[in-house]
Amino acid sequence: MREAALSLFSRHGYAAVSMRQIAKEVGVQAGALYNYTPDKQTLLFELMRSHMDDLLSARAATGDSGQDAMARLEAFTRFHIHFHSQRPDEVFIAYMELRNLTPENFEVIEGLRRQYENGLEDILSAGQSDGVFAVSDTKIAAMAVIAMLTGVNTWFQEGGRLSLEEVEQIYWDMVRKSVAANP
Amino acid sequence: MREAALSLFSRHGYAAVSMRQIAKEVGVQAGALYNYTPDKQTLLFELMRSHMDDLLSARAATGDSGQDAMARLEAFTRFHIHFHSQRPDEVFIAYMELRNLTPENFEVIEGLRRQYENGLEDILSAGQSDGVFAVSDTKIAAMAVIAMLTGVNTWFQEGGRLSLEEVEQIYWDMVRKSVAANP
Repeated sequence: MREAALSLFSRHGYAAVSMRQIAKEVGVQAGALYNYTPDKQTLLFELMRSHMDDLLSARAATGDSGQDAMARLEAFTRFHIHFHSQRPDEVFIAYMELRNLTPENFEVIEGLRRQYENGLEDILSAGQSDGVFAVSDTKIAAMAVIAMLTGVNTWFQEGGRLSLEEVEQIYWDMVRKSVAANP
Repeated sequence: MREAALSLFSRHGYAAVSMRQIAKEVGVQAGALYNYTPDKQTLLFELMRSHMDDLLSARAATGDSGQDAMARLEAFTRFHIHFHSQRPDEVFIAYMELRNLTPENFEVIEGLRRQYENGLEDILSAGQSDGVFAVSDTKIAAMAVIAMLTGVNTWFQEGGRLSLEEVEQIYWDMVRKSVAANP
């Protein structure tokens, strides 16, 4: 059911998709859907929350503590590109459908997103203290780096001119220089 | 009519908005709309095309030729942030509704977008030749910079902690370093 909703929301947009259409895609009667979710809003919220939960736990699983800030930033950069390139629909919806969340649900998703951004900001602050990074505002720098990296999703295609590993290397080179004290 | 469509598309998404709703927002009968546009697809296409035309002509009006690559990159960076921050709805739709364009209309919009990206790529190539920039792939670097700068729209608010001028300065600092040979 989640896969059907994800696919329909990303193709047509949340507001244009009905529970009836989702049921049809799953291959059940519309009424049967309500055994699994109380309404379409909950379905959207669960999709976005599980995407953010997956992101945070996959990130936590890379376990970067103990390394220096430069190594942590490289790990973050490669992780972010890799994780997001595997989930184009989730990433698209996570950005596009924020406007369709209820205020309470929006707060939850924003909180998870802030948690992820704070993880990067911590790395930047650590590198700043060590003198290896020089950014004028760690919060803005974190958002700038994340926007740059997520942008890969708008153009990258498997089998194109560059492999994902080459793309990661190019972006890592730019990210490193953008925040480094002595690039 | 365009303003009404822009506002409705950005709030609800193209697929969820009917010509009837647009007519209601404008304050005319649905039939009257067809005097101005043959259909909803044309309306979306015209919104996206005029956004790209405005972008390209505003950019051309800044006239950066004759300057060195570093000055041209700074002008591009400040222009991009400033232009896009004034048009959040257009920017949102330009990204989000690409999927809803017919293949022919998509080609036109993609062509205009490529033209804009090529403008930045030219600056990067010129700086590369002059030895002031060092990027491993000017095309990817151009898209990375644009994604980073457009990201300002996802968080910037007038009257917040930072003025737009301060934001421009922070991003210019990061963009400069990210591509510079000797940052």
